[in-house]
Amino acid sequence: MTTQTIQIYDTTLRDGSQGEGVSFSLQDKLNIARRLAEMGVDFIEGGYPLSNEKDVAFFEQIRRDDLGATKICAFGMTRRKSMKAEDDPGMTALIRAQTPCVTLVGKTWDYHATEVLRVSLDENVAMIGESAEFLARHARVIYDAEHFFDGFRANPDYAIKTLRAAASAGAQWIVLCDTNGGTLPERVAEVTKIAREKLSDFDVQFGIHCHNDGDLATANSLAAVDAGATQVQGTINGIGERCGNADLVTVMANLMLKKTGYEVLGGRSLTPLTELSRYVYETANLQWRNDQPFVGQSAFAHKGGMHVHAINKAAATYEHIDPALVGNERRILISELSGRSNIAAVAKQHDITDDRESMDKILSEVVRLENQGFQFESAGASFDLLVKKVLGMFTRHFDTIKYRIVAGDRDSRSHTVFAEAIIKLMIGDELWFDAAEGHGPVNALDAALRKALLGRYPCLSEMHLIDYKVRVVDSSAGTAASIRVNIESADESGTWGTIGVSENIIEASYHALVDAVEYKLHKENVPAPDGTKVEESAALTAGS
Amino acid sequence: MTTQTIQIYDTTLRDGSQGEGVSFSLQDKLNIARRLAEMGVDFIEGGYPLSNEKDVAFFEQIRRDDLGATKICAFGMTRRKSMKAEDDPGMTALIRAQTPCVTLVGKTWDYHATEVLRVSLDENVAMIGESAEFLARHARVIYDAEHFFDGFRANPDYAIKTLRAAASAGAQWIVLCDTNGGTLPERVAEVTKIAREKLSDFDVQFGIHCHNDGDLATANSLAAVDAGATQVQGTINGIGERCGNADLVTVMANLMLKKTGYEVLGGRSLTPLTELSRYVYETANLQWRNDQPFVGQSAFAHKGGMHVHAINKAAATYEHIDPALVGNERRILISELSGRSNIAAVAKQHDITDDRESMDKILSEVVRLENQGFQFESAGASFDLLVKKVLGMFTRHFDTIKYRIVAGDRDSRSHTVFAEAIIKLMIGDELWFDAAEGHGPVNALDAALRKALLGRYPCLSEMHLIDYKVRVVDSSAGTAASIRVNIESADESGTWGTIGVSENIIEASYHALVDAVEYKLHKENVPAPDGTKVEESAALTAGS
Repeated sequence: MTTQTIQIYDTTLRDGSQGEGVSFSLQDKLNIARRLAEMGVDFIEGGYPLSNEKDVAFFEQIRRDDLGATKICAFGMTRRKSMKAEDDPGMTALIRAQTPCVTLVGKTWDYHATEVLRVSLDENVAMIGESAEFLARHARVIYDAEHFFDGFRANPDYAIKTLRAAASAGAQWIVLCDTNGGTLPERVAEVTKIAREKLSDFDVQFGIHCHNDGDLATANSLAAVDAGATQVQGTINGIGERCGNADLVTVMANLMLKKTGYEVLGGRSLTPLTELSRYVYETANLQWRNDQPFVGQSAFAHKGGMHVHAINKAAATYEHIDPALVGNERRILISELSGRSNIAAVAKQHDITDDRESMDKILSEVVRLENQGFQFESAGASFDLLVKKVLGMFTRHFDTIKYRIVAGDRDSRSHTVFAEAIIKLMIGDELWFDAAEGHGPVNALDAALRKALLGRYPCLSEMHLIDYKVRVVDSSAGTAASIRVNIESADESGTWGTIGVSENIIEASYHALVDAVEYKLHKENVPAPDGTKVEESAALTAGS
Repeated sequence: MTTQTIQIYDTTLRDGSQGEGVSFSLQDKLNIARRLAEMGVDFIEGGYPLSNEKDVAFFEQIRRDDLGATKICAFGMTRRKSMKAEDDPGMTALIRAQTPCVTLVGKTWDYHATEVLRVSLDENVAMIGESAEFLARHARVIYDAEHFFDGFRANPDYAIKTLRAAASAGAQWIVLCDTNGGTLPERVAEVTKIAREKLSDFDVQFGIHCHNDGDLATANSLAAVDAGATQVQGTINGIGERCGNADLVTVMANLMLKKTGYEVLGGRSLTPLTELSRYVYETANLQWRNDQPFVGQSAFAHKGGMHVHAINKAAATYEHIDPALVGNERRILISELSGRSNIAAVAKQHDITDDRESMDKILSEVVRLENQGFQFESAGASFDLLVKKVLGMFTRHFDTIKYRIVAGDRDSRSHTVFAEAIIKLMIGDELWFDAAEGHGPVNALDAALRKALLGRYPCLSEMHLIDYKVRVVDSSAGTAASIRVNIESADESGTWGTIGVSENIIEASYHALVDAVEYKLHKENVPAPDGTKVEESAALTAGS
């Protein structure tokens, strides 16, 4: 069986930046382009050089980089109506970007030509042909046929005519775009085959550009490849307008690891994929999608006791691929359904121990806490501290003597809400007392705790809270039920989750805050004050 | 062309609860089941009656509901090895759940039988057959063939043998499970056809159960339907272990709005789909996925200037479906306008009004509150009060003068946590002052509020809080961000949800408590004290 090379065309920097809440700085764009080139992506669409200065600067600066075989593309629309291509500022801006490839987008749907562009059908064809011809004198031309699938349904002859105009003018790639994202895979396959046949007299390659409005962008991209497309356009993590573009992460992983007969990225490994995905999320300031296929934090996470038991026997039993192939890793969640096998697996991951006696001690402590409403699946840092405590490896950095919060309306009818906290701690044999105000009682308590500790533990200034969640554990009793608080903290090197459970939300929050701080101090190997005993029980975490 | 009915089988409450961070209370499960039945889902898998008391209670309570044509299913595994089905506690627990259908899961993959269950291949077949036979005496049996696609690849003859064992023992549905979620659509179609052929001597229907590990769960579900499966199993929003299950939201929308020849939900409308999706996210305390196909907040959001311009000319130009078909709506970004059609729909649902001027007033109030972090999807009672306030139909039953809470450790090292609240109210021209202790500050505040009101409004003794949820609205700033509190209250005739938003959790909770009480008093038509003015603004709800 021969292997067909499939080119990967990334448009994270252009179509991806249309996503809600996404905005890249110039430096962001340069950084992402370099990462994509390292990964071995064939084409990187850098932006629209007419639209803004940032994109012009991007093309100017990226030109100086050695990106290996990766080609940068500038993106632009066909010339304006009733204008020569060489006089159109959009066309000349594309040339000035001096990229080896130019991606030209044109109208395929008759309705769009007449109703949106307000040109005749013939003028639209002329705009495509003349623009492609002009650009082909300076660069290799990729032609993006906007709304191809909708246009073909409405007027197949005209849609094909627009493709032929681009091909005969020198475009080397014809990219079929499902711009509205609503086409079904069987239709993508069928229409891709027809388009190839109708242009079989040209020496062109076909590409596919999908959007995810039907939750089918990955399937549609794969269907087009099976129908003969040799280029897939998409974005990292599928970011993009509305429901996003085809996710190149899942397209590449499926082509390389699932389907047979295709080669992507010049045969390079996919192990940097998870890191690349997270890098793009971080740069775009977007939340990771934990359940993202292949690269998500939960993609190889196992919760049910039965599954975990089986996973330990043979990974392939419950995993569709080896997570290491995409740079991801297996995670065993500690949950209400977990048994000994879950805990042993986590302890092993944390390189802790797996002797039978220690396991039993950890297990019985976890069961005791789970019965109180603890759940360690998103509180890995609290679990870590618990293990250290059970194994006698935990040193406490401070003792809480007392804390108190006051909150309410300041006074009659002014409705000014206030919150204050006081805290009294022992660090070794020194007594510390402090107070702080906050936007709410937990915020005030956090502020007071840090204020009291910072003098002695300055590294705590590096950490901050990034998320705070509260849940009633047994909701049948309303506000008198147990309250579970999860806090997510971060410093420059990562994030960690802690938990507190109590009937009192303030107490639960306080325990989660204390765990967050202790985890940071242990992580940084900050010595505890002299004379502090090593803990041998989980009493603190347990909130007793 | 004849229309094929496709049954929708929801496992949000069972497989969905395996998702990371998902944990439903009993009340959550009952609420979701009722919503699903309203939507017209054919089957609801309620849980695993052997594993925990919560699921046992769920089956007991839901039995009293009239769910129309919707059938509740209990889920369980085949009998244990070397045991009679009738002696197996898992089997008898399934029967005791007294559901019209039982879903039995069994091993299809030879490797699983011998290496995970540690039984012979023949014993595994016997376990399937005897379990199905025993259950079929009491209920209609749906057989879930775990790992069917992987098992069929490894040992096709054996995999088919397990299906035949279930069918010949009386299972009415054979559901092919892609448990590891790694199968490609073309393979799902091919193998589904083979399985149907191999069981053509039985009068059984086929189902499909996909996971999303390859980002193909929707495509795989559709491919199986095209290959003759007539039941699709999945979860709302695709929540579930690892990368989740097939998302019934997108499966149903594609089957009904994109593909031809299929009918789902008995031909009902999909307009409640967006609301259902958001309700499940809120109940599971999960973030919405803004880019979720069909129902996401960004699914019909338009950002690029060109697109928005085109959208204004003709919606179909850049939208694959009319968003109203799934209860969603177009959003033009920049103006954060959201909700007109939702609001009109909800207002109509509440039998309120639909004159243009009132709608505009309600809409602008909702937009103002949404910008502060309110969300009315699971706070129908607060929405109701808001509408009454905007339309001048709200009478306040009391005015809060002042409230205050104190909480903390009682004293040095005793770690006795306390919480106390005081409250000062005006009811008409009478001043009421009271105080209460509680298990936490919110509980204390609730107790003090009721204590102060009960003398004047005795019907409040009938209501109680059944759930309390807290969410950080903008999580980037940790505990200083806005806090959204949702409270679920109940009396004998039903439950109602209220909401409060503030930077201060105590204030947000207090507003949700006040709304809960006011809703009850309005519901019972309790007259407000003489001289109380009818409110004409939403000032109280807004927390000002």
